[in-house]
Amino acid sequence: MGGKDVKVVSFWPSPFAIRAEWALKLKGVEYEYIEEDVFNKSTLLLELNPVHKKVPVLVHNNKPIAESFVILEYIDEVWNHYPLLPQHPYHRAHARFWANFAEQKLMESAWVATCTREDVQENAMKAAREIMEKIEEEIKGKKYFGGENIGYLDIVLGWISYWIPVWEEVGLRQIIDPLKYPAISAWMINFVSNPLIKDTLPPRDKLLAYFHSLKQASSSFYQANFKI
Amino acid sequence: MGGKDVKVVSFWPSPFAIRAEWALKLKGVEYEYIEEDVFNKSTLLLELNPVHKKVPVLVHNNKPIAESFVILEYIDEVWNHYPLLPQHPYHRAHARFWANFAEQKLMESAWVATCTREDVQENAMKAAREIMEKIEEEIKGKKYFGGENIGYLDIVLGWISYWIPVWEEVGLRQIIDPLKYPAISAWMINFVSNPLIKDTLPPRDKLLAYFHSLKQASSSFYQANFKI
Repeated sequence: MGGKDVKVVSFWPSPFAIRAEWALKLKGVEYEYIEEDVFNKSTLLLELNPVHKKVPVLVHNNKPIAESFVILEYIDEVWNHYPLLPQHPYHRAHARFWANFAEQKLMESAWVATCTREDVQENAMKAAREIMEKIEEEIKGKKYFGGENIGYLDIVLGWISYWIPVWEEVGLRQIIDPLKYPAISAWMINFVSNPLIKDTLPPRDKLLAYFHSLKQASSSFYQANFKI
Repeated sequence: MGGKDVKVVSFWPSPFAIRAEWALKLKGVEYEYIEEDVFNKSTLLLELNPVHKKVPVLVHNNKPIAESFVILEYIDEVWNHYPLLPQHPYHRAHARFWANFAEQKLMESAWVATCTREDVQENAMKAAREIMEKIEEEIKGKKYFGGENIGYLDIVLGWISYWIPVWEEVGLRQIIDPLKYPAISAWMINFVSNPLIKDTLPPRDKLLAYFHSLKQASSSFYQANFKI
């Protein structure tokens, strides 16, 4: 399925862009990967996503779809075997609610808490841990947020399992203490161990080097160019 | 349909909360309206939406669903006659994309541009008008964003048609010049003239008085307590 009529315009260290790939991999949809240089944006990207000018963009039958959440819903609707969202409307609402909740605050808090100036780190760390506490309650007793299989919320939160440990190492500050968040910690291992997920992850050394250099640059640059 | 098993916990001047009512009205679902005092939050609200503690909350068969976008998707899935989202996945993605786009920036820009301190108004006005230009292109040639009928994107953007003119009057600053945005202006009239929409709108005088008093209070208070 898929093949040349499915393309993903991405940027390798982006925790947003990889969601499109994860969804396609889980669905067994073949796609062409197109690397975008977000520091020197291509005319292709500007044509495909003139409003936000950001990755990811999914191109299906020459039609572009931007924004990772919108892309995930689209993929789940077009290739509707192996559903990502639960089937029951209430459970779908529940997954969307937690996805939005984490998206609104967690990534920014986690980045600021680990990799920005000390004067703003404390509040961000507090915020990140408060969110983690809520997510810990959500995942308790389950292998994945989606139950026995990786689902929509796992894909949305998946970056936690691979990006946060990198940021913790770059900033020498810990957000996720396994003793305090045992359920999240177990889920993180389950998630990155899944062969389909593992297969798409950028090399850890390369990611460490990238975020080390990003930490050196101003955090405002990150906000303007990297957050999608 | 609906009846006592459908409740909407709302706050009458909220441009977010009314979306749930609009969707239910368009679907012909009866519901019980429960007014919440957001300045003195009820234990009911804290129980129903412990994470955000904000309206709207839809309660269906005693199960709470929070956040207006999540509620709209839920309503569209549960009562699936008169669909709000388009049927084709690409058109659904398109509607969701524009909904997210406007939500991220327009309401805040419009409020700041009209009703806050002069030193921050100019940038906000510029941002609000840039967004309006994009929305103008989207609605051009159509009666509603949903085509011939009110759909998901009309509901999400519906506040523009009634709240922005009130804010313009409160702040004595114009965002939507009908000569510059003729298509949006025509849509605004179409939208508020629809009997089902009209029926749910709060009285204009009361809304004017409310936002006059809110303008007097600090804008930070608005951000903390009203934005959902």
